[in-house]
Amino acid sequence: MFKRTLAEFIGTYWLVFGGCGAALLAAGVPEVGIGWVGVSLAFGLSVLTMAYAVGGISGGHFNPAVTLGLTIAGRFEAKDIPPYWIAQLLGGAAAAGTLFVIMSGQAEFASVGSFASNGYGVASPGGFGMMSGMIAEVVLTAVFVIVILGATSHMVPEGFAPIAIGLCLTLIHLISIPITNTSVNPARSTAMAIYADGPALGQLWLFWAAPLAGAVIGALIWAALDED
Amino acid sequence: MFKRTLAEFIGTYWLVFGGCGAALLAAGVPEVGIGWVGVSLAFGLSVLTMAYAVGGISGGHFNPAVTLGLTIAGRFEAKDIPPYWIAQLLGGAAAAGTLFVIMSGQAEFASVGSFASNGYGVASPGGFGMMSGMIAEVVLTAVFVIVILGATSHMVPEGFAPIAIGLCLTLIHLISIPITNTSVNPARSTAMAIYADGPALGQLWLFWAAPLAGAVIGALIWAALDED
Amino acid sequence: MFKRTLAEFIGTYWLVFGGCGAALLAAGVPEVGIGWVGVSLAFGLSVLTMAYAVGGISGGHFNPAVTLGLTIAGRFEAKDIPPYWIAQLLGGAAAAGTLFVIMSGQAEFASVGSFASNGYGVASPGGFGMMSGMIAEVVLTAVFVIVILGATSHMVPEGFAPIAIGLCLTLIHLISIPITNTSVNPARSTAMAIYADGPALGQLWLFWAAPLAGAVIGALIWAALDED
Amino acid sequence: MFKRTLAEFIGTYWLVFGGCGAALLAAGVPEVGIGWVGVSLAFGLSVLTMAYAVGGISGGHFNPAVTLGLTIAGRFEAKDIPPYWIAQLLGGAAAAGTLFVIMSGQAEFASVGSFASNGYGVASPGGFGMMSGMIAEVVLTAVFVIVILGATSHMVPEGFAPIAIGLCLTLIHLISIPITNTSVNPARSTAMAIYADGPALGQLWLFWAAPLAGAVIGALIWAALDED
Repeated sequence: MFKRTLAEFIGTYWLVFGGCGAALLAAGVPEVGIGWVGVSLAFGLSVLTMAYAVGGISGGHFNPAVTLGLTIAGRFEAKDIPPYWIAQLLGGAAAAGTLFVIMSGQAEFASVGSFASNGYGVASPGGFGMMSGMIAEVVLTAVFVIVILGATSHMVPEGFAPIAIGLCLTLIHLISIPITNTSVNPARSTAMAIYADGPALGQLWLFWAAPLAGAVIGALIWAALDED
Repeated sequence: MFKRTLAEFIGTYWLVFGGCGAALLAAGVPEVGIGWVGVSLAFGLSVLTMAYAVGGISGGHFNPAVTLGLTIAGRFEAKDIPPYWIAQLLGGAAAAGTLFVIMSGQAEFASVGSFASNGYGVASPGGFGMMSGMIAEVVLTAVFVIVILGATSHMVPEGFAPIAIGLCLTLIHLISIPITNTSVNPARSTAMAIYADGPALGQLWLFWAAPLAGAVIGALIWAALDED
Repeated sequence: MFKRTLAEFIGTYWLVFGGCGAALLAAGVPEVGIGWVGVSLAFGLSVLTMAYAVGGISGGHFNPAVTLGLTIAGRFEAKDIPPYWIAQLLGGAAAAGTLFVIMSGQAEFASVGSFASNGYGVASPGGFGMMSGMIAEVVLTAVFVIVILGATSHMVPEGFAPIAIGLCLTLIHLISIPITNTSVNPARSTAMAIYADGPALGQLWLFWAAPLAGAVIGALIWAALDED
Repeated sequence: MFKRTLAEFIGTYWLVFGGCGAALLAAGVPEVGIGWVGVSLAFGLSVLTMAYAVGGISGGHFNPAVTLGLTIAGRFEAKDIPPYWIAQLLGGAAAAGTLFVIMSGQAEFASVGSFASNGYGVASPGGFGMMSGMIAEVVLTAVFVIVILGATSHMVPEGFAPIAIGLCLTLIHLISIPITNTSVNPARSTAMAIYADGPALGQLWLFWAAPLAGAVIGALIWAALDED
């Protein structure tokens, strides 16, 4: 279990450091900034790369909702949820801390602002309300879990799953950054909310409730597709 | 057949939710918006991800024109066209409805406008006429079907087809969003035309006629390439 | 040979239609245009997709310089160069003609302008002189041929070559669109020069000489790497 | 050893020519420029393509820090470090020289400026201080080495490693171009510092120290994950 939780720690560290780091440091720079396309690629590639690197050790969840969905689908043991969730939360928090230190070394640094946290209503990048955010997070996490379960099923030749899963996270961000800044991952939301100014901590409940609910729904839909 | 049509429903839901959702919500945002590159990636990745997830169940068409092309090529039974087409249309319509609900929760929401529907003439993003739209949709669907038939043929090692097919849809969008907003898929066009303001419903005939004609042409060209 | 030349015709048609079409129609549109990143992706994905679709039939050259390089490397028979080159030139010219018809159906159409042709000096997008263009085209075609020969060698598991080769063409465009609008392919250059206004036909010699020279150099370098 | 060092020379040439070339020539062009997304893709695809092309000959390091990390991890013999490092430095320098010649043929050429060199403080694109640059380079190189070691381990089916490794370098650039212009590779930093105006040579020590330290850390973390 030590190696498995270390792998989850490192993978979630990379997801938050890579995805949120790209968003914070490189997205909004005039002329050459990477914009939301770059941020979407960053989140997806963080999962693609770590799923190849350590997926064989821990399964490559890097996300409490994914861990729950795999448990519902019978691919993961419920008793291992606590160490996985703790490792994911610690990895995410460590990444957020590293980003805080890096940002504070910028010449013009004043505050972290919203720190790439997730939000709805006034905290939604595009001004989308709570219900829009809830629906989007539930639907997107459900699809994410369906893609994870399908791409790792016996129907797909071994080795392709990290491509499908990573690029699914890219697509999820291409759709929903304007709605909630995209969570589908309670560890990522928690990590950034710890440091963020504004309403992120108060809105954090939605970014646990909606991804976890979506993961359960996704696992149940997959069960309907996969029943033999 | 239930599992197969459920897979087509989900896959087409994801294609419309992902591709049109990215176009509606994230494309035109100033500074950080994803633009047509992001929309092209979104459409392609929706097919790439779902082809890995459920392609082994239904074949992963998510598109009435593809279903027809595979039938012409002898890879699909004609009697199964109706349930597939119905599942694709329902999946696309359900995604369009979800997008409508999410958009209506935006603070500044007034109307869906053209709702990422397809069009020609006044409804073409770049002002291209009906004949230009017809040619583009026929050619692009023909190539799409050739790539699908080729990438799933015995000449390609198993597992790579979703990459080739998904990224072909990305390329198709990189070329033709300015011409017709890119269909090559009657289910995608129908789903958005239901909700769209403007001439989308009246122009919908072209986005059935041209993709279906292109699919037949593509299947016949592949037959010339593949004859043994 | 009929099936093989038909495959080369279709593949080169797609390379020119996809790559140059994206450049002409979608690159320069304000706000949402795909820019050179989109054009680079388009060229690369045209090769990636067609190499999967018909690479097993013709080898997937779609480029007279590649055909020459493979011949020098002993992977292709010299007697088959003429039919391949003719098929590539006809496929490219047919694509350029299709693009001309589509563009002429745009409301504001006046002329095709430089029509995404290749050039140096006054015809270079970034104002690079003839020597810069020559060096870039030779180096980039040499690397392209090295990647093609390496990725299709016995050292790489089957199925990955189209990814490496297609994305190599993407990278080549990311570097050199400002220099010559990127050729590395005499068929692509010839196809667009036929229709282009300006100096494209008079400068066409360089886009035969440099890619062919580069292909020979690439094949010789590979021979030094691969000698047993 | 001749073939192996030639492969490292060519691969590092391509990494510097492709990645830095895209940055210098195509990134900042108004309207259609590739921006940092394009530069990030260029660096990643240079490694992806050359790892397929010549990875089977030399292992595909193209980076002194990677060579050191593989040595620490027991995958490479220490006695082979000197020829590899020399080949990488010469390949990078040759690419920088080629870029210098191409750039000097531009109509408006005056000087190479910072020549895509790496830097901190006043030489950081976003004004990040030395400590921020140090932390970022160490963390990113450590992760890069973990991904390289994991993706080439027995847990991943053969053939996928170049995708994981190349796209990891893309992700690294998406995060850290604003911090240090992204090194994680002393050969790339040295190559450009030779020609650059400004403080690049004086700051070069950090782009040896931090990537090499990060590579050692990455190799040690992998050892903790992989121990059997």
